[in-house]
Amino acid sequence: MRSAPRLSVVIVRSRPHWIHLLFVRRGSLLPRIFSQQLFVLLLSCAVVLAHGQLFHVKVTLTSAPFSLMGVALAIFLGFRINASYDRYWEARKFWGVVLVEARNLSRHALTLTRGDVDARPFVLGLIAFAGTMRNQLRGRPREEGLDGLLPDEVLARVRTARFAPALVLLWLGQWVRDMREAGCLPPMLAQHMEGSLDALSAALGGCERIANTPLPFTYTVILHRSSYTYCMLLPFGLVDTTGWMTPLVVGFVSYTFFALEALSDEIEEPFGMMTNDLALDAIVASIDASLRELLGDTPPPAPRPDADFVLN
Amino acid sequence: MRSAPRLSVVIVRSRPHWIHLLFVRRGSLLPRIFSQQLFVLLLSCAVVLAHGQLFHVKVTLTSAPFSLMGVALAIFLGFRINASYDRYWEARKFWGVVLVEARNLSRHALTLTRGDVDARPFVLGLIAFAGTMRNQLRGRPREEGLDGLLPDEVLARVRTARFAPALVLLWLGQWVRDMREAGCLPPMLAQHMEGSLDALSAALGGCERIANTPLPFTYTVILHRSSYTYCMLLPFGLVDTTGWMTPLVVGFVSYTFFALEALSDEIEEPFGMMTNDLALDAIVASIDASLRELLGDTPPPAPRPDADFVLN
Amino acid sequence: MRSAPRLSVVIVRSRPHWIHLLFVRRGSLLPRIFSQQLFVLLLSCAVVLAHGQLFHVKVTLTSAPFSLMGVALAIFLGFRINASYDRYWEARKFWGVVLVEARNLSRHALTLTRGDVDARPFVLGLIAFAGTMRNQLRGRPREEGLDGLLPDEVLARVRTARFAPALVLLWLGQWVRDMREAGCLPPMLAQHMEGSLDALSAALGGCERIANTPLPFTYTVILHRSSYTYCMLLPFGLVDTTGWMTPLVVGFVSYTFFALEALSDEIEEPFGMMTNDLALDAIVASIDASLRELLGDTPPPAPRPDADFVLN
Amino acid sequence: MRSAPRLSVVIVRSRPHWIHLLFVRRGSLLPRIFSQQLFVLLLSCAVVLAHGQLFHVKVTLTSAPFSLMGVALAIFLGFRINASYDRYWEARKFWGVVLVEARNLSRHALTLTRGDVDARPFVLGLIAFAGTMRNQLRGRPREEGLDGLLPDEVLARVRTARFAPALVLLWLGQWVRDMREAGCLPPMLAQHMEGSLDALSAALGGCERIANTPLPFTYTVILHRSSYTYCMLLPFGLVDTTGWMTPLVVGFVSYTFFALEALSDEIEEPFGMMTNDLALDAIVASIDASLRELLGDTPPPAPRPDADFVLN
Amino acid sequence: MRSAPRLSVVIVRSRPHWIHLLFVRRGSLLPRIFSQQLFVLLLSCAVVLAHGQLFHVKVTLTSAPFSLMGVALAIFLGFRINASYDRYWEARKFWGVVLVEARNLSRHALTLTRGDVDARPFVLGLIAFAGTMRNQLRGRPREEGLDGLLPDEVLARVRTARFAPALVLLWLGQWVRDMREAGCLPPMLAQHMEGSLDALSAALGGCERIANTPLPFTYTVILHRSSYTYCMLLPFGLVDTTGWMTPLVVGFVSYTFFALEALSDEIEEPFGMMTNDLALDAIVASIDASLRELLGDTPPPAPRPDADFVLN
Repeated sequence: MRSAPRLSVVIVRSRPHWIHLLFVRRGSLLPRIFSQQLFVLLLSCAVVLAHGQLFHVKVTLTSAPFSLMGVALAIFLGFRINASYDRYWEARKFWGVVLVEARNLSRHALTLTRGDVDARPFVLGLIAFAGTMRNQLRGRPREEGLDGLLPDEVLARVRTARFAPALVLLWLGQWVRDMREAGCLPPMLAQHMEGSLDALSAALGGCERIANTPLPFTYTVILHRSSYTYCMLLPFGLVDTTGWMTPLVVGFVSYTFFALEALSDEIEEPFGMMTNDLALDAIVASIDASLRELLGDTPPPAPRPDADFVLN
Repeated sequence: MRSAPRLSVVIVRSRPHWIHLLFVRRGSLLPRIFSQQLFVLLLSCAVVLAHGQLFHVKVTLTSAPFSLMGVALAIFLGFRINASYDRYWEARKFWGVVLVEARNLSRHALTLTRGDVDARPFVLGLIAFAGTMRNQLRGRPREEGLDGLLPDEVLARVRTARFAPALVLLWLGQWVRDMREAGCLPPMLAQHMEGSLDALSAALGGCERIANTPLPFTYTVILHRSSYTYCMLLPFGLVDTTGWMTPLVVGFVSYTFFALEALSDEIEEPFGMMTNDLALDAIVASIDASLRELLGDTPPPAPRPDADFVLN
Repeated sequence: MRSAPRLSVVIVRSRPHWIHLLFVRRGSLLPRIFSQQLFVLLLSCAVVLAHGQLFHVKVTLTSAPFSLMGVALAIFLGFRINASYDRYWEARKFWGVVLVEARNLSRHALTLTRGDVDARPFVLGLIAFAGTMRNQLRGRPREEGLDGLLPDEVLARVRTARFAPALVLLWLGQWVRDMREAGCLPPMLAQHMEGSLDALSAALGGCERIANTPLPFTYTVILHRSSYTYCMLLPFGLVDTTGWMTPLVVGFVSYTFFALEALSDEIEEPFGMMTNDLALDAIVASIDASLRELLGDTPPPAPRPDADFVLN
Repeated sequence: MRSAPRLSVVIVRSRPHWIHLLFVRRGSLLPRIFSQQLFVLLLSCAVVLAHGQLFHVKVTLTSAPFSLMGVALAIFLGFRINASYDRYWEARKFWGVVLVEARNLSRHALTLTRGDVDARPFVLGLIAFAGTMRNQLRGRPREEGLDGLLPDEVLARVRTARFAPALVLLWLGQWVRDMREAGCLPPMLAQHMEGSLDALSAALGGCERIANTPLPFTYTVILHRSSYTYCMLLPFGLVDTTGWMTPLVVGFVSYTFFALEALSDEIEEPFGMMTNDLALDAIVASIDASLRELLGDTPPPAPRPDADFVLN
Repeated sequence: MRSAPRLSVVIVRSRPHWIHLLFVRRGSLLPRIFSQQLFVLLLSCAVVLAHGQLFHVKVTLTSAPFSLMGVALAIFLGFRINASYDRYWEARKFWGVVLVEARNLSRHALTLTRGDVDARPFVLGLIAFAGTMRNQLRGRPREEGLDGLLPDEVLARVRTARFAPALVLLWLGQWVRDMREAGCLPPMLAQHMEGSLDALSAALGGCERIANTPLPFTYTVILHRSSYTYCMLLPFGLVDTTGWMTPLVVGFVSYTFFALEALSDEIEEPFGMMTNDLALDAIVASIDASLRELLGDTPPPAPRPDADFVLN
C-alpha cells in the first residue's frame, strides 16, 4: 500500500481508483504498440467479414492449437519479464549502493580526519562521481552538471575520458592517500575508506555490465516472432466460435502480449529516458541533497513529479 | 507449523481451524475489493437474465478464449505477487539488519571501551536511529518517540532534516571517533565498529530504495486492465454452459484475481499502515527492548497483538 | 541420490522402493488433512447419487471453468510452496552458519591465544549459545540443557532474559576482550574473532526474523478459500462426465491440493516440532560433538533416527 | 554452446547430433525407471484390450480431469526440479570455493612468508583438506588418498575423527600461528589467511548442511503418489479418444514424469556416486594439480572421461 | 529501452522495427535448427496427404493429450532456459568482477605506493590476467595476446601451464609483497590489495566452475527427447481439426520449441564462440582500455560491432 507523504528519492504516484486505472493513458504503452495493435484489429475484422476464408479457401484452424501455444508463450514471456525486471532492479540496487557508500565516505571524512581538514572537496567529489556515472550510462557529455564539484585539472581529464567515473575515483583515492600521508587520517581508517571506494567502483562496473550486455538477442527474436505469429493467426482460429466478438477477444489477447513485450523491452535497459526507466536525474539530485545535508547545508526540497507523475 | 509460545517481535496469529479459515473476516481483503466484486456479481446476474445477449444481440463468446487468457493472466499475476513479496521480504531483512547491527554495536561499546566509559548514550542513540528510520519511511515527524534518546543539539538538527537517520549515524560516528581519540577504544576495534555503522547505513539506503522505487507502474496498469476486462467478459463466455451457476463461478474467479491483485498492491509498499504491511512499531519496540536488556535494564514484556491479531 | 553411510547431522531416510513409497504412512500428512479429505469424498459420493442435483435443481457446471481455475490455483499454490521452502532453507542456512562460526571461533581460541590460556570455557560458551538460541526459537525455558556450560552469574542472567542468546554473545565478547587486554590474544586477531561473533549475532537475528514474520496472513486465507471452494464445487463439474469415478478423481485432486497446502504450512514456520520441521535438537547435538572433538574430547556417536526415521 | 578443448575440471561430453541424442542410452535414466515404465505400458495395453472396462464395468474417465491435474503436477514437479538443482549447484559452488581459497592460501603462503620458510607442508595440507572433505561427504574411510599429505600425528587424529576436515583446518591454523609467532608472517597478513581458512570452513559446513538436510520428505511422497496415480489412471481417460495409440501416449507422458522425478532424486543429494552427481574425485584431483603447479611441480594431465563420458 | 550512444563494452544492436524483427536472419538460430525443422515440416505434409493414416491404419490421436503434454514441456523447458541464462549471467558477472577489481588494484597501485615506484608493470600484469583467463576458458594458446604485458620468466612459465591465470596471480602477489617489503606500500594497504587479488581468484574459479560443470546431461536428454517426440506426433493429433493448415501450426510450435532448446544450449556454455555467447574479446579489450586510461594513456576508441552487429 501507499504510505503517507513520501519523502525521498524517485517516482511517486498515488494509486488511482480502480476504475480510473482502466482508462489512464500514461504508462499504458498504447502509443508504443499502437501500429501493431491496429494491424491485428483490422486483420480480425477482415477475418470476420471473410468468415475465416483466405482467397475463398477456408482456413482450418480451431482454438485447440492456440490454447496449446498460448500457455507456452505466456511461460516464455513470463520468463523474459522476470529477467528484464531483475536487470532493472539490480541496476537500482547499484544506484542505492552509490547513495549509501557516498554517505559512508562523507561520514568518515567528516569524523575520522584530524586537525582542521576541510572535507568539503572530497564530499563534492563524491557528488561528481554520481554525476559522471549517470552521464556515462546515458551517453551525455561527461562534464554535464559538474560545475564547481571537481578541481580544474581533474575536470579537464574527465571531459575527454572514455571511462570518466573511474578517473573521479582515482582522484578520490588520491585525496585519501594525501590525508593519510599528512597524518590527518589514521592508516587503519584510510584502509576502511578504500573499501568504500571499492564498493563505488563495483557499483559502477555493475551498471556498465547491465548497460552493455542485453538479454540474448536471439531470445528477443524468438519471442517476438512467436507472439506476433500467434496474434495474427488467432482470428482464424476463433472466428467460428466467437463470431463478431473476434476482434474484441483478439485485441484483448494481443494487448496483453504486446504490452508486456514492450514493457520488458523498456525495463531491460534501465538507463534510458523512457517512462519506465530509472529516474537517474532524481537519484543524483537526492545523493546531492543528502551529502550536502551532512555537510551542514540546507538541502533543496524533495523534487515533485510533474503533471504526468514522472521524474527523470 | 506453529511453535509453542512465540517470544519476540512481530505478528502472531495461531492458525485457526480450516473451517474457521473459510469465514474469517480480517485479512480477507473483502472490504477493499468489495465494490469491484459487487459490480462483477451484478453483471453476471444481468448476463444470466439476458441469456448472454447485449441489446438483443447474442454475445458470441465461449469458454475457450478464457481458458487461453486465464493461464496467461495467472502467470503474469504470479510474477507480480512474487516481485511484491520479494520487496516485502527484502524490507524485512533490512530491519533485521538494523536489529543485528544495533546489538553488535552495543556489545562492542559495552566490551571494547576501556576505563569508565558510559556506553549508555551510544546505545540510546542506536535506538534513536531505528526510530528516525521508521519516522522517515512512514512520513511521520522526525522526532517522534525520540524523547531522551539523543543529545539536544543532535535532536534539534534531526527535527528539520530531510534525511534524519543519516544525521544520527553521523553523531554515532562522532562518538566512536571521540572514544578512539580519548584512548578508550583501540583503533582496530574502532574500525570494526565503523563497519557496523556502514551496515546500518546500507539498511537505511535499502529501505529508502524500496520506498521510492515501486514496481514499474505500467506493469500494474497492464495487469489491472487485463484482469478486469477478463472478469467482465467472463459471464458472457460461461453463461451458455454454466447457466444460473454463472455468478457463483465468476464471483469465485474474480475473488481470487482481485484479492491477489489487492494483496500484491499492499505488500509492494511494505512501510505503510495497512494490515499486511510490516509492523514497524513492534520491530522498533523490540530493538529498544533488546538493547536495554544488554544495558542491564529490565525490558518491557513482549507486545501482545490486539483482538484482531494485528501489530503495527 | 543417496550416498553411502551418512555421518553427521540431521534427518536420514534411505529412499524406499517406488511401490513402498505409494503406501508409506509417515510423512504423508494424511492424519492432518483427514477431516477435509473425508468431507470432500462424502460430498462427491452424495453428488454422484444425486446426479449433480441440489434440491432437485441441476447444478449447471462443467469441467471448463475448473480447468481454468485449476491452473491459476496451482500457480499460486506453487508460489506459496516456494516461499515457504525458502523460509525453511534460509533458517537451515542460519543454523549452518552457527555451526561454521562456532567451529571458527573454537579454532581461533585454540590457536591464537598465547600462554597457558584455557580455551575450554569459551568453547563451552559457544555450545551454550546454540542451546539458548534453540530454546528461544522453540519457546522452551532458557536454561534447558545448559548445565555446566556457562559461569553461574551468566546463567542467572540468561534464565530470566527475553533475548537470552544475545546475553551469551555479550559474555563471549567479554572473554575475547579479557584475553586481549591480558595480552594473550593479538589485537588484530581479536578483531577477527569479533567478526565471527557478529556472524553468530546475524544468524540469531535472521532466525528471529523468520520466526516472527510469517507469510502475509491474507495470502494464506485467499489460497485456503480458493482451493477449498474449488474442491467442493469440483464434483458438480465432473459428475456428468466421470460418473461413478467422480469421488476417485476429486479425492485425487483434493489430496494434492490439501497436502501441499498443509506442507507449506508446516515448513513455513521451520522451528516447530512437527515432522517436517528442522531437527534443532540434532543440530545442536552435532555442534556440541564437533566442538568437543576440536577440544580433544571423544564426541558421542552420531544420533540414529528412531523407528519412524525422525530426528527432532 | 561447447567451446573448443575444455581444459580443467570435471564432466565433459561434446554434444551429440540431435538424432543421436534421441537414442543415447547413458544418462537417459531408463534403467532406473524401467520397472515403473514397463508396468504402466502393460497396464495401457490391458486397458486398450478391455476397452477401458474394469471387471466389465466401464471406467468413466475422460481426458478433461487429466488436463486439469497434469498442469498442476507439472508445476509442482517443476518446483521440485528447481529446488533439487539449486542444491546441486550450491554444492558445486562450495567446491569451487574450496579450489579458490586453497589457491589463495597457497599464494599467500608462497609470497607472504619471510625467510626460508618451506610452504610445501601447508599447501599439501590444503590438498588433504579437500580429500578429507570428500571422504566425509561420501562416507569413505577418512584417511583415503591422504598418503604423504599430513604429518603423522595429525593423520592419526584424522583417522578416527567424526568431523575430520575440521581437524585438518585446526592444523592449518596452527601452522599459520607458528609462522606468525616465528616472525615469518606479518600479523596483518596472518589475519588475512585466517579469513581464508574461515571460508574453507564455511564451504565445509555448507556441504554438510546439504548432505544432511534433504528436501522435506513429505514433499517427495506427495509428488510421487500424485504422479504415479496420474500415470496409472491416464490410460482409462485416454482410451476412448486415442484407441490403440494409448500405450504410446501414456508411455510418453509417464517417461517424462518418471524420468524427471528420478533425476530430481539423483541431483537432490549431489555427493553420491550416480551418473548425475558431482564428480568429486575429479574436482579433488584438479585442486591437487592446481596447487602443485603453484608449488612449481608439473601437474598431471587433465583427466579424460571414460568411454561413457563419465568422471567420478 | 535503448539509451543514446552506448559507450563501453560488448554487444550493441539498436532495436529494429517490429516488422523487421519478424524477418531478421541473424540471431534467429534458423541455420542451426534447419534440418529438424525441415524434417517436421515434411512429416506434417505427409500426414496431411495421408489423412493421418500410417500404413492405411488411422492414427487415433487428438489434440487433447498434446494440450496436456505441451504445458508440461513448456514448464520444463522454461526451467532449462532459466538455468542456462543464470549460468550465462553469472559468467558475465564474474567478468564484471575482473574489470572492477583490476581497476581497484590499479587505483591502489597508483595512489598507495610511495616513492618513485613505477606501477605500470603491475597494471599491465592485470591486463595479462584477463587475457590468460580468456585464453584458458576458450582453450586458446595460453600466451596469445600477452606480448609485452608480462616479464619474460613469468611468460615462460605461463606458456606451458595448465592453470595459467593462477600463475599470473602469483606473480601479482609477489609484486605486492616486494613493494611492501621495500617499504613502498603500507602493510595495511598491502593486505587490502591481497583482498582484491583474492576476488580476481574467485572470479577465475567461478568461470572454471561454469565451464566445467554443465547442466546435468540427463536433463538435456529428457527434454530433447520429449520435445522431439512431441513435435513428431503433433501432426497426427492435429490433422483432423486443422487440415491443410497442419504444417503451418506444427512448424510454428516446433520452431518455438526447437529454437528455445537451441538457445538454451548456446548460452548454457557462455564461453564459446557462437553468436549468443559472451563477447570475451571485447570485454578484455575494454579492461585493457580502462586500465591504460588510468595509467594516463589514451585508450583506443570503443569497438564497433561488425555489419552483423556481433562482437566476439
